[in-house]
Amino acid sequence: MTKTIEFYFDFASPYGYLAAEMIEEFASRHGRQTTWHPMLLGAVFKATGGKPLTEQAMKGEYSLADFRRSAAYYGIPFKTPTTFPIATINTCRAALWMQEKHPAHAKKFMLELFRAYFRGDRDIGKLDVIGDVAKGLGYDADEVIAAAQSDDIKAKLKAAVDEAMAKGVFGAPFFFIDGEPFWGADRFPMMATWLTKGAWSY
Amino acid sequence: MTKTIEFYFDFASPYGYLAAEMIEEFASRHGRQTTWHPMLLGAVFKATGGKPLTEQAMKGEYSLADFRRSAAYYGIPFKTPTTFPIATINTCRAALWMQEKHPAHAKKFMLELFRAYFRGDRDIGKLDVIGDVAKGLGYDADEVIAAAQSDDIKAKLKAAVDEAMAKGVFGAPFFFIDGEPFWGADRFPMMATWLTKGAWSY
Repeated sequence: MTKTIEFYFDFASPYGYLAAEMIEEFASRHGRQTTWHPMLLGAVFKATGGKPLTEQAMKGEYSLADFRRSAAYYGIPFKTPTTFPIATINTCRAALWMQEKHPAHAKKFMLELFRAYFRGDRDIGKLDVIGDVAKGLGYDADEVIAAAQSDDIKAKLKAAVDEAMAKGVFGAPFFFIDGEPFWGADRFPMMATWLTKGAWSY
Repeated sequence: MTKTIEFYFDFASPYGYLAAEMIEEFASRHGRQTTWHPMLLGAVFKATGGKPLTEQAMKGEYSLADFRRSAAYYGIPFKTPTTFPIATINTCRAALWMQEKHPAHAKKFMLELFRAYFRGDRDIGKLDVIGDVAKGLGYDADEVIAAAQSDDIKAKLKAAVDEAMAKGVFGAPFFFIDGEPFWGADRFPMMATWLTKGAWSY
């Protein structure tokens, strides 16, 4: 069985978006599969007292520029959303539902959600936008919207966020390779070495 | 005249130490000189409400491991200091004095201070340790210790920290290449592209 890279992200994270654009090619180059774990950074920040980068003194302006600069560096289209960050609880719920019901298309759905926000400047926290994105992939918008609000999916997202925090996920993107944690899209070069040369002791 | 890379750091920053070990070779590979700017992250944190990584919820354990893992990744000796972080106000003052009095040896002095802390587990915030490091390079320990406490140097450090913060330095290591800011030792790959392919618009 092919081993996986566990990929945790928040749909409102620009570096999460960049990672989402790169992770499949990266994993396949290293003979790995991936498991995508949408989660809520807001829940982490509530527990840790953290704040979005752009709301941190001095870091805000740098971060906004670095989002664009990093996207250009990786060759990935990027447009700073008008509203940033946004609440992505509905987005996460819809993604979990898609993972459960249509696992073969779930990554494509999640990537299209990211793109709707970071290329199309659409507020993917809103149910009608989520429905639109689903419709673009051939799904029934109303079904997705209803599913995203079901008690079952709400409970599953809560469990997913708790599980991520219990594993130590405190930021996004966050990766685990055979249990080893890596935080940040800028850890791709180190992860590549980890996968090609093998784990090193430290 | 060779253009410079501006390099800002705090002597208590592990990633600053790793950058200090790499910056000269990096700059020379790209036909650049460097200017080293010791500064105090504590002053930044006082202004921004920031905290050392190891004191942040959830990030602490990861960071301590990532310091060691990153050092091994770069092939740089590293030993987690018993006391971390430490106050480096005396260290910075001694470094500024050395830059002023013996500029040709100042980088070597700063690198040896970093190594005393991150390889030798010595508290380089203490004046006697700073004197010892200076003595190891052939300088008079008492002269360095006295100079580090002079009003002139105290005022110069204050001005240096104010200048760094005015330029937007909010973390360490921090670099400027032709005015472009880069934060973090993990920005070396991006800086390399910036220097080889030229600045890109974003």
